[in-house]
Amino acid sequence: FSSATPITATLFPGDGIGPEIAESVKQVFQAADVPIEWEEHYVGTEIDPRTQSFLTWESLESVRRNRVGLKGPMATPIGKGHRSLNLTLRKELNLYANVRPCYSLPGYKTRYDNVNLVTIRENTEGEYSGLEHQVVRGVVESLKIITRAASLRVAEYAFHYAKANGRERVSAIHKANIMQKTDGLFLKCCREVAEKYPEITYEEVIIDNCCMMLVKNPALFDVLVMPNLYGDIISDLCAGLVGGLGLTPSCNIGEGGIALAEAVHGSAPDIAGKNMANPTALLLSSVMMLRHLNITDKAERIQNAIINTIAEGKYRTADLGGSSSTTEFTNAICNNL
Amino acid sequence: FSSATPITATLFPGDGIGPEIAESVKQVFQAADVPIEWEEHYVGTEIDPRTQSFLTWESLESVRRNRVGLKGPMATPIGKGHRSLNLTLRKELNLYANVRPCYSLPGYKTRYDNVNLVTIRENTEGEYSGLEHQVVRGVVESLKIITRAASLRVAEYAFHYAKANGRERVSAIHKANIMQKTDGLFLKCCREVAEKYPEITYEEVIIDNCCMMLVKNPALFDVLVMPNLYGDIISDLCAGLVGGLGLTPSCNIGEGGIALAEAVHGSAPDIAGKNMANPTALLLSSVMMLRHLNITDKAERIQNAIINTIAEGKYRTADLGGSSSTTEFTNAICNNL
Ligand SMILES: CC(C)[C@H](C(=O)O)[C@@H](O)C(=O)O
Ligand SMILES: CC(C)[C@H](C(=O)O)[C@@H](O)C(=O)O
Repeated sequence: FSSATPITATLFPGDGIGPEIAESVKQVFQAADVPIEWEEHYVGTEIDPRTQSFLTWESLESVRRNRVGLKGPMATPIGKGHRSLNLTLRKELNLYANVRPCYSLPGYKTRYDNVNLVTIRENTEGEYSGLEHQVVRGVVESLKIITRAASLRVAEYAFHYAKANGRERVSAIHKANIMQKTDGLFLKCCREVAEKYPEITYEEVIIDNCCMMLVKNPALFDVLVMPNLYGDIISDLCAGLVGGLGLTPSCNIGEGGIALAEAVHGSAPDIAGKNMANPTALLLSSVMMLRHLNITDKAERIQNAIINTIAEGKYRTADLGGSSSTTEFTNAICNNL
Repeated sequence: FSSATPITATLFPGDGIGPEIAESVKQVFQAADVPIEWEEHYVGTEIDPRTQSFLTWESLESVRRNRVGLKGPMATPIGKGHRSLNLTLRKELNLYANVRPCYSLPGYKTRYDNVNLVTIRENTEGEYSGLEHQVVRGVVESLKIITRAASLRVAEYAFHYAKANGRERVSAIHKANIMQKTDGLFLKCCREVAEKYPEITYEEVIIDNCCMMLVKNPALFDVLVMPNLYGDIISDLCAGLVGGLGLTPSCNIGEGGIALAEAVHGSAPDIAGKNMANPTALLLSSVMMLRHLNITDKAERIQNAIINTIAEGKYRTADLGGSSSTTEFTNAICNNL
């Protein structure tokens, strides 16, 4: 493999702890001899008029060209007149599905030990339309937009994912008993797609009930697909079940086969530069990127090394109750490869 | 107390298991000598044009007159041309705050043992506006409405509740990083009210993060106040932490001092009429009603009897892993009074 022509992937180390955990990924990829060449892009210091945000046009072009990338945390600078970095990426690259596998890590104890599910979130519309206005003084409204096109697209992805990954069930999460037209359309699209996948069990679960079931018995769920805001909420809830955003990977799927893997935790400015950050979420995200590229053997090897290192418990970062530095933890993973 | 002039309260036994669990409340109130006289109202069999639902006008008039009531589960009959029973009650009686205390029951083991929080949900607007339409084929939108009046009203209630109940912190739950105008207005109102309560700590928590923190460490929370849909989601999540909707009470506060206590679980038609239902949620809701009426000593006695009966574990209904009938469980509570 090391002699194969390397694949170029965009890397956004991001802010805060981003560069340190990106370093960890680079080191592990090198140790595992992964045929990836990184094209690094940092968040700019000025608003780029072509993106209306601190993201440079060049960095977006890089993802469009490479079709694959990895992204660390990005803190959106405070101020007006520009768009959030994360939302800009989603809009500009049409990252329509956010995929977050969530599983209990052996040896890292939480209250739950049998979580193994994947949330698939519609990532471009819904409550994130940005359409809000004041009707009269003291009365404001925001628009939730659901389209047939985006709903079909994410439903298609969810069923495709379920089938490709040997998953048995897709649950559509909704509140169509209240939002009959918007969430109703979302469900209608899911049902249409479900018909094409008779081998996958399809069910619909109301979001409030879903959250109750998730905290009572997460093993009831397999693949969950849902509109934007519900996905935002439920994916964080699920991450909480297995230890938090520091441990859970994600990957954004865009139109034309783009895949941008992403650690969704914050940039943790308080510990930035202190060699203390936990790189697990970004590492596991990079594994999702490798799987997307069908570099399956390396993906498997790296994932096992990460999981085993955490399970052994000798080297753990402070957030997991250990006292290892980012470097020590990364070295331990490399040794476990 | 038994010689005091009784207070008249409206009772909606509701459907399914409703009548059986309402019977349980009546029996416990009698055993505890509670000075309440019930005015019973059932859901009608025809649409009442004055309420546009199966709820009769007389039943709403009864709550308006008595200013206090207790409600079992109501299954909204399927079909078009009428409004959901629960939503009709909220709209017609202007039930602006839904209060759900949620605490670990000693002796009833879940994954969490230190939950003691209260969710206070805005109950009249937000995502429940009912305003939805198709923009063009394949594109639908729904309106989320946030008003200054309703936000101030529920925030006032939350801080008033926190103070009156010796609670120390109020957390406003929101997604104002995305819905800056709607959730932003909600937060602005919460901040205004918070200023008047310097003795109560005020904080703001983004809903996705809130759900993650709730499953990781619910002890971080005390009183939570939020817009309608977030309240719907988070109150069910919290109920899940301590065992589910069969164990958690709620009370709706309406304009003009109306209080309608309510078991928010379903009507469980599969076990209706079998003397199997768990009356705990309705019983604890009736305790909230008594506290609202300042019948504090009886409220305390009944609550302790319920909690002790569950803790002893000898008499438990099937949903809690026991084999007692509704009647046996109710008798045990009466003996514990
Ligand atoms: C930072 C925020 C805008 C974002 C979202 O709401 O989508 C985050 O919570 C996420 O899940 O990626
Ligand atoms: C039945 C449904 C309309 C209702 C709601 O969404 O408010 C329920 O979930 C509740 O919490 O009382």
